[in-house]
Amino acid sequence: MSVERYDVVDLIRTKRDGGQLGSPEIAWLVDAYTRGYVGDEQMAALAMAIFLNGMDRREIHDLTQAMIASGERMDFSALPVPTVDKHSTGGVGDKITLPLVPLVACFGVAVPQLSGRGLGHTGGTLDKLEAIPGWRAELSNPEMLRVLAEEGGVVCAAGAGLAPADKKLYALRDTTGTVESIPLIASSIMSKKIAEGTGALVLDVKFGSGAFLPEIERGRELARTMVALGRDAGVATSALLTNMHVPLGRAVGNAVEVAESVEVLAGGGPSDVRALTVALAREMLAAAGRDGEDVVAALDDGRAMDRWRRIVRAQGGDPDAPLPVAREHEVLTAERDGVLLAQPALPYGVAAWRLGAGRARKDDTVQAAAGLILHAKPGDAVRAGQPLVTLATDDADRIPRAVEALAGAWRIGNAGEPIDDGGPLIADRIA
Amino acid sequence: MSVERYDVVDLIRTKRDGGQLGSPEIAWLVDAYTRGYVGDEQMAALAMAIFLNGMDRREIHDLTQAMIASGERMDFSALPVPTVDKHSTGGVGDKITLPLVPLVACFGVAVPQLSGRGLGHTGGTLDKLEAIPGWRAELSNPEMLRVLAEEGGVVCAAGAGLAPADKKLYALRDTTGTVESIPLIASSIMSKKIAEGTGALVLDVKFGSGAFLPEIERGRELARTMVALGRDAGVATSALLTNMHVPLGRAVGNAVEVAESVEVLAGGGPSDVRALTVALAREMLAAAGRDGEDVVAALDDGRAMDRWRRIVRAQGGDPDAPLPVAREHEVLTAERDGVLLAQPALPYGVAAWRLGAGRARKDDTVQAAAGLILHAKPGDAVRAGQPLVTLATDDADRIPRAVEALAGAWRIGNAGEPIDDGGPLIADRIA
Repeated sequence: MSVERYDVVDLIRTKRDGGQLGSPEIAWLVDAYTRGYVGDEQMAALAMAIFLNGMDRREIHDLTQAMIASGERMDFSALPVPTVDKHSTGGVGDKITLPLVPLVACFGVAVPQLSGRGLGHTGGTLDKLEAIPGWRAELSNPEMLRVLAEEGGVVCAAGAGLAPADKKLYALRDTTGTVESIPLIASSIMSKKIAEGTGALVLDVKFGSGAFLPEIERGRELARTMVALGRDAGVATSALLTNMHVPLGRAVGNAVEVAESVEVLAGGGPSDVRALTVALAREMLAAAGRDGEDVVAALDDGRAMDRWRRIVRAQGGDPDAPLPVAREHEVLTAERDGVLLAQPALPYGVAAWRLGAGRARKDDTVQAAAGLILHAKPGDAVRAGQPLVTLATDDADRIPRAVEALAGAWRIGNAGEPIDDGGPLIADRIA
Repeated sequence: MSVERYDVVDLIRTKRDGGQLGSPEIAWLVDAYTRGYVGDEQMAALAMAIFLNGMDRREIHDLTQAMIASGERMDFSALPVPTVDKHSTGGVGDKITLPLVPLVACFGVAVPQLSGRGLGHTGGTLDKLEAIPGWRAELSNPEMLRVLAEEGGVVCAAGAGLAPADKKLYALRDTTGTVESIPLIASSIMSKKIAEGTGALVLDVKFGSGAFLPEIERGRELARTMVALGRDAGVATSALLTNMHVPLGRAVGNAVEVAESVEVLAGGGPSDVRALTVALAREMLAAAGRDGEDVVAALDDGRAMDRWRRIVRAQGGDPDAPLPVAREHEVLTAERDGVLLAQPALPYGVAAWRLGAGRARKDDTVQAAAGLILHAKPGDAVRAGQPLVTLATDDADRIPRAVEALAGAWRIGNAGEPIDDGGPLIADRIA
């Protein structure tokens, strides 16, 4: 760590005025912010300046390295198998981690999925898994390593020691309107994943109306930025650009997404969830040097399900326990006969969040049983009065504002009219 | 006050993305920030977004009104004479308030100069006056009104009740690199001056290398913005655009600027300080409906000096007491014979600040005796070895970094070469 001192206001002004920050300046800033010498209000002003004026590749690299250097680094090199992880930039109904980790773990690789909690309209993987009775997200490092070594996969909370600068900055960005910035997103994701110590990494970069960066070109830029950061750090990294124009699958929430994941692990489930799980599993196995494995067979013959049950049990969960069911339900129905033409993701994310599936503030608790079930997907024929979406919550007071969020959340038209589903599920691959 | 609630992150995002904030949104934001419901880190992000994306006239008006509404408003309408005040956007060696207030007070108007302290390279009027033994900046409202009524002028600290939102935001901007923004400067100055209750106001808007906004066009825009805000609020407002390319006068600091001000009140002093004092006095008297008074005579015949002594005494000061003298001095000399061609203001401001005349943090104390005396001004002939500037401080340790700040702070050339003084002292008038 440099012992040189900078004037933080000078550094903010440099970025504000469109200049570049030097490598030692960025290293000092992140260290000083982690220690509390640079205040939240100063980092917030800098984050907004970065949001509006950008950072070049070298600055993003330096920012990522500085956030890694703020904490400990994990090391899985003692494992006898390659490690490979996946990260999604977040979407509505994105439960892919749940079937994906056990599926990939079937093939002699280890998946160390150190995950976060949801904030805002996209749910968190840990929140979803906590709907399983007994399941624990918080593991000590030795526990985590044991589960990973024995079961080939683990999904747990990233310890406080991993990239603490990123944790602090991520929470700050959430309250200061500085989330949707490529330099800040890329350095946040990649600092955690590089510090986590995975050998290979597959990124699921979302585009479409429900993604943080809706335009595909911005998603592509984010993917390229992150792939380069991974390569620079010696992590074999690739990315799929995937469609988040409509919700993924039919379940949005916590317990309901676990149930849908189990359907996929049983060889069924919605076709988009299954297809994305398969595509990401192939990409992960290829990144780990295991090309050409038959991942579909592992879903269909029960291997992935067996692995799921082992991993859930290893973290204290009971895979046979009934999932929690909400106390209150509300069903919204089709207003006419026709074809479901549009189902934009964002209102469903907001509705599930308002029902209690997500949190507005870091310390809020989430309802395991809250969420939505979609009874039709774009392209489906519907009849007037048919249920389109069921809302679930433990708290009837939450229903009106969730229903409000769903105003305009679907469009029914006539057969033959164009379906607004945002195009193919997987739009591009960046490697 | 609206009781409606907004999501502060949505409001930050609106401004971040180049949108306009509505009137009730701005009123809510400022109120919520004053109450602490909106955090410093959120306001810092918003301030940076305002810095980079601007505000339109209506938004600036709303911001000003909201800051006025955050506190009390003074009312001088019970005084039998018109009130008129002056505000300078700040410059190096700008002690004009000191001779100006007593000069204008000679003509049957009242000057309620509620002032601030210096932060950074421009000095504060109260810091300067506090170099006078016994003089008190902190007056209660009744004391302030009594001095104003009896002596026709008062220079004191603005009470905490006046535009508290601005006080909080001003301190935040100083530490977050968001000072030099026309919407933020204009609303800050005008909210204080409108809340102060003056009937007329003259703005001394600086341009040139030593000003916060060096380009004259930006100064003109700031002046126009503030004049419009004053008019909207029923305050007769005009502005002079004045040159801050070189230091004003020959003294930069606290006691040394008081001494120079007394020279002007005695009918002497540097020609630029005297000229600007006279111009601003005429402008203030015109704004108060007293056109055509002979202000030069009041400087030359001792009336302004008498008034100065009365005002100083009324605030506890002893106008006859010797001013403090610094313990340590350092003299820098001319390296060659020739003509002083350039003397950029900023390094002199920084040097005086480093000598102890200003403060780096809000709670720092200032040294009354610290500062600079300039022995030559642009256009003067100089001889090799002749003193150019004397540095004064109580603390010898401060001298090296002050000398460092003065590297390149003058240029000596040959007679006939162009003088880089930034042009005329008064470049424009906006009304």
